[in-house]
This record gives sequence, C-alpha cells and structure tokens, in this order.
Amino acid sequence: MRVEIVSVGTELLLGDIVNTNTAYLSKELAALGLGVYRQTTVGDNRERLLKTLDIAFSENDTVIITGGLGPTDDDITKECAAEFFGRDFYFHEYSWVKILERLTRTGRNVITENNKKQAMIPEGAIVLENFCGTAPGIIIEENNKRIILMPGPPREMRDMFGKSVKPYLEKYSKKQFISKYVRFYGIGESLLETKIKDIMDRQTNPTLALYAKTGEVLLRITASAKDKNECEEMINRQLEEIESREGVGEYIYLVGDEDVSSSQTELNSAVANLLIKNNYTISIAESLTGGKITEMLVEKSGISNSLLEGVVCYSNKSKITTLGVKEETLEKFGAVSEEVSREMALGVAKRLNSDFAIATTGIAGPNSDESGKPVGLVYIAVYAQGDVSVKECSFVGDRELIRFRASIEALDEVRKNILKKL
Amino acid sequence: MRVEIVSVGTELLLGDIVNTNTAYLSKELAALGLGVYRQTTVGDNRERLLKTLDIAFSENDTVIITGGLGPTDDDITKECAAEFFGRDFYFHEYSWVKILERLTRTGRNVITENNKKQAMIPEGAIVLENFCGTAPGIIIEENNKRIILMPGPPREMRDMFGKSVKPYLEKYSKKQFISKYVRFYGIGESLLETKIKDIMDRQTNPTLALYAKTGEVLLRITASAKDKNECEEMINRQLEEIESREGVGEYIYLVGDEDVSSSQTELNSAVANLLIKNNYTISIAESLTGGKITEMLVEKSGISNSLLEGVVCYSNKSKITTLGVKEETLEKFGAVSEEVSREMALGVAKRLNSDFAIATTGIAGPNSDESGKPVGLVYIAVYAQGDVSVKECSFVGDRELIRFRASIEALDEVRKNILKKL
Repeated sequence: MRVEIVSVGTELLLGDIVNTNTAYLSKELAALGLGVYRQTTVGDNRERLLKTLDIAFSENDTVIITGGLGPTDDDITKECAAEFFGRDFYFHEYSWVKILERLTRTGRNVITENNKKQAMIPEGAIVLENFCGTAPGIIIEENNKRIILMPGPPREMRDMFGKSVKPYLEKYSKKQFISKYVRFYGIGESLLETKIKDIMDRQTNPTLALYAKTGEVLLRITASAKDKNECEEMINRQLEEIESREGVGEYIYLVGDEDVSSSQTELNSAVANLLIKNNYTISIAESLTGGKITEMLVEKSGISNSLLEGVVCYSNKSKITTLGVKEETLEKFGAVSEEVSREMALGVAKRLNSDFAIATTGIAGPNSDESGKPVGLVYIAVYAQGDVSVKECSFVGDRELIRFRASIEALDEVRKNILKKL
Repeated sequence: MRVEIVSVGTELLLGDIVNTNTAYLSKELAALGLGVYRQTTVGDNRERLLKTLDIAFSENDTVIITGGLGPTDDDITKECAAEFFGRDFYFHEYSWVKILERLTRTGRNVITENNKKQAMIPEGAIVLENFCGTAPGIIIEENNKRIILMPGPPREMRDMFGKSVKPYLEKYSKKQFISKYVRFYGIGESLLETKIKDIMDRQTNPTLALYAKTGEVLLRITASAKDKNECEEMINRQLEEIESREGVGEYIYLVGDEDVSSSQTELNSAVANLLIKNNYTISIAESLTGGKITEMLVEKSGISNSLLEGVVCYSNKSKITTLGVKEETLEKFGAVSEEVSREMALGVAKRLNSDFAIATTGIAGPNSDESGKPVGLVYIAVYAQGDVSVKECSFVGDRELIRFRASIEALDEVRKNILKKL
C-alpha cells in the first residue's frame, strides 16, 4: 500500500495552526508497516483539492484526508471526494440521529439547516461513526484505490483513527509491528546516544529511534514479526541489553506502549502509580510552579485517595497562614530559599499528615523579585516520611519552560524518594 | 507571488517529528501578504523531489524548501534544486571558512570530507549565511521563478528566514497585512456563523475566518492596505459591525493580535488582566479541576499580587480542614453538590480575605464516585465581594476534556462576575 496524506484547511496554509494530524497519522501508519510517500496540505478550494487528488492517485493507491468535513459552506472535502469518484449523496439517517444527539447533549439547542450537510454520505461509502464530534468519517473504495476522510480536529481524528481506520488498514499490513517506548530522565540525548551507539548502529529488527523531549529522552523500540508474542520477546531482549549498559539503566523511569509516546512527560504517571500501588499519600505546596505539579498528578485517574491536598501559596500570606512558614524565615532568607522550601514541605505534610510532600519555590521570570536572585533559581524540597531533602536547581528558559522543568524535576525527586522508602 | 512550501525529510514522513517549520513559514508569509497555495512533504528521494518541483512550479512561481542540506549522502535537496535549474556547483570559500569556524567552536575537531559538501554552491545562486549552523541557505532565480533553500532545524531556519529571506521577500509584497483575533466564549461556531453569515459572505477586505477551538471560537479579521493605520481602521469598522449584531457581541471576551491566535484559550489572560488592572485579589479552591485554573492564571506574569492562594482540595479531609466545608454538608449532599461548592468558595475566600474566589467540584471520570452522579456533572461557585453564585454544568468528553471545559467555564464565570462589580 502506498499512502498519501492530505490535510485540508486554509488555517494550515496561513500557519494559524501546526499540522499535528499528519505527524500522528504518519507515525501510526509506520507502526503498521504502511509507507507514506507524500504529505500535502491544500486550502478549502475545490479546484486545487481535485488536482491534489489527481496527483496523489497517479502515484499512490490510498489517500487519507483530514479536515474540511464541517457543516459550513467552505467545507468541501466530502464533495470533492464524491466528485472525484463520481458518487452522488444520500441522507444518512443514522448519522443524523447521532448528530442531533450530540448537539442536544452539548446544550446547543439551535440546530441550523447546515448541520444536515454532515449527514450527507456518498453512495456506496463506508461510514465511520464519530464518537467525539458531529462529522462522520467516510471511506470510498474503487479499483484497488481508496480514499479515507476524517474530521480535522485532532481529538476527533485520533479517536476515529483508533476505533475504525486502524482496524480497516490492519488487513493491508502483512506483519505485526509492536513498539515499546522507554523514557529516560536525567541524561541528555547525545550522551545516551554515545553510550548505546553500537546498538543503534547495528539495528535492523528491532529498530531503535531516539527523540529528545523537554527535559527527557524517549527511545522507541519497534519489532516486526509474525505475531505479537514474538515481537514482545524481541523487544524485551533488546531492552535488557540497553538496561544493563553502564550509566544507562538507572535513568529509565518508565517503559510503556504507544500511549506514552506523544506526552511531554510520563513522570506524573510514574509517581501516581507508585503512590497508588503502595497506598501512600502526598501533599503539595507550590509557589513558582503554581499548581502545575498537582495538576499533572490529577491528570491520572485513581489518584484521589493518594493526593490529599495541593496548596498554591503564591503569596507570602498564604505561605505563613496556610503552611506555617515562619515570618522570620521569609525575612531572613527570602521566599526563594532552601529554608523556606523546607518549611513549606514540612508545613504542607503536617497539615493533613501525608506520607510524602513536595514544595517548590523559585523565580520563573521574566524578571527577578526584589531579592535580585537570578531567574531560573528553584528550590525543590521533598518530605519523605519524616525526612526532608532540598535540591537547588538553576533552569534556563522562559517563564513557561522554567515552570515546566521545575515541575518534572520535582516529580523525579519525589519518585526517587518513594523508591528509597520501599 | 504564489508560493509552495516543500519540506524534505524521511523523519517527517515517518511522523517522528511534527512539521513546525511549515506553520512558521506560512504565518510569516501571510503577514507579508504572500499567498501559500500548497505545502508538501517528501522524503530524501531524488526522483520524488524532482517530481515535486515539477508540480510545484507548474502552478506557482516560488518554492521554499526546508531540510536536506546536511553533510551526509542522503541529503540531496541542493543537488535536486541545481539539477532542476541546470546549474553546476562550485566551491564557495567564504562558506567553508564559516563552516570550519563553527565546527571548531562547537568542539567537533573531527572534520570529515563530507563537511565540504555544505560549501558547494550552485552557479549564480545567492548564498544566505547560516548564523546558527553549518549549512548555508541558497536562492536560485530564473525567469520570474525562484527556489529558496533553508536548513531543516527550526532554530537555524527561523534565524535565516528573519535575517535573509524575509528582507528578500519583502520587495515582492506591495501591501501591509494586519490581522486581529476576536475570541468568543459561550457561542458555537455554526450558530455564530449563521448570525454573521451576510458579513462573512460579502467579505473581500477585510477577510474573515472562523476557527473552532475547544469550547470557544476564534474569528480572524485580516485587512490589507497601504499602511498599518489604514488596516487598523478597516478592522475596527468591521469589528464594530460584528459586535453590534444581536446575540454576538456579548460573547466576545478578547480582541488581540496574532499572539492570541494559537493558544487554546485566552480566558486566563482576560481574567488575569481584569484582576491586575483593578487591584483585585482572588483565591481558588479546586476539586475536579485539580489545580488547572490556578495554573492557567499563574501562566500570566504579573499575577502574583492578585492571586493569594489556590487550594487543590482533592480529599474530603482537605475540604473540611482547609476550606471549612461542614461534614454534614458533605454527608447530606455529597462532595459533588451545589452546597459543597458554595461552602468551598466562601471558605477559600475567607481564608485570606480575597475579593473574588472560584470553587469547582465535579466528576471528571472515567467513573463516577460512590454517589453515582453522572460523569461530567460539575458545580462552579464564584464568590464576588460577598455574593456567591453557583452554576451547575454538564460536560461531555474524557477526563482531560471535562477538566479543561470546567476550568474555562469557571474562568468565564469569574470574568463576568468581576465585570459586574466594576
């Protein structure tokens, strides 16, 4: 199968949004062993979209299009695909019922005539239900060619791809492809590459690929074989070799399946899993990180019994009143200091008597506070069943990056402290 | 000028990296008033790249290529461009000196023969110095056509675009283009379109475009004229007409420049600005949103004097101890109830005596709590200088989406409450 991915949307041509759909689909297709030969983006323009289909099908047998399935007049993807294959439209009752249900459920009681457009389906097409939005997906097949239409919003597209398009495509893929993702924290991409260069160089199957994420490194191991079990055995053998390399294994914090490949970090999952599995409780006091650490843990369902409380003590008043930080400590050392971070961690742990606690204080920028301490200076205190340790860090970047780096560093610190107590 | 942007790189076809270069260039070109008609991505493959150039120049006069200028054998962009225009190569001394300087400075003392490849330039081409890497950029012009080659790494490409390519392109741009972005909350895309359909239909200059974001709608108004002032006057006239439309103006919460176009929401900016400008203080108590609201406000620098405290009261213990929610209220109505949200808002406001407060409680899923209340049920309480109001909401989506929707709804509620008190 030779695939071309076509994205439709004037907002893409104007650069108003970054095309993440194409990367997502390409990665998924690569994992199925299907080759993408070109990616094209065009505007919502009939003539140019038809020409793009002409070119695409002159070289490839499968075209996957995202975008342009909306209810408004300038959404013309479905119309062009039907025209290209010479199909008429009919009104698809089931899709209309689903559209009405969704519009009603999301509280939009004004249903306009143009909503009906989304229930019009080309004759003979396969209809793919949209569980996250109103526009159904469509597959038209003809003479060993096929066009697959999916909605543009990434959430809708990904859900539809996983539930309908992937199973449809799997029958064209002769081998099983399985990937595992290994996440490293505390080691840089080039150092890691140096340490496993000989393994990287002789890769054939499994294949290996390194990706630098903000503050961490992701290693993809992909094996292809006749069945799933064989793939997994091959991956595990490869993983063991990597883990046993000196100065490598200790930086691995998570090995997971494809779900973990796209997230910025999985340190929150690692910490949440450790807390939940061991029935540990945690409290969090955040100054510069402003709720980010708590928020990252709350993302993980099942955390509610472990996470007792998060306090975003942005003001000194909050540090004193809620966390019991001493006024003298604040005056003597300043809010951004080892001493204050220590009192914050102890204070928040004591409030509801939790097993672990994290406290952060620092200068996120863009400017320093009245102390004149440098932007990027951060103190991370971890309370672990009676013990408190503080780490002084210095992060480079803008406000958002400094806050993110401080958050993942704090998660890694508490992770290591929990492991020590097991 | 009609532009096609071509990205070269197998890593893009495999989905290993997201193509941010294309979005960046498209946005920059749109701001110059230059139209991008297609974006194409191909692998490092001679035949397919030459074919792509054929197609591109059959419809457009300018092709901008990024990627494939590296020193290794599989980098073939420069070779294909030279072949397409029938140019030979020569060794460019100045570029070689600069390459040597950079390799020495970055500590790579092993300089191999293939580094020389990057100093080979097609006859008659314009050479663009690379201040962030080794590969120089290249422009080949012929018969009103031009091809512009830039390196693939985003940092190098952006620097080269700003310093050399943008000034080069500016001479082809006759007019100024200015865009303003209008953000709506509380009205859906199709209803909004229906209400301003006549304006959308007759648009020529300014042009209008609607984009659906999660929970909100973004309207772009772009005007072109001989100078900036004239553009802004045209935009303001258009905006006034839209604002005065019945059932439209009241949903606008922000009008901004291009910085606001890519973010998911700007409700946090709108609230932060209102608080800071009016010297108001706020406290936040979050259960299901888990720190997201606080975190969204902390993103905005300058908020530190306004945001007194955020409490993530995930456990009942925290609701009782820290916020003073009564045990009887929790028992009688359950944690997810109007009554508890009200006590949370009052409790967190009273702690540090803030002007405003937000409290959220709800069921984010994937499963309900022991009460059996439906997933997506959320209570948002807003305290506004002595008054408390509670809104019951029902959100559809997964855990992450429900938490996000609850957060922006809460921000919109507090925004409206602050406006009432002004």
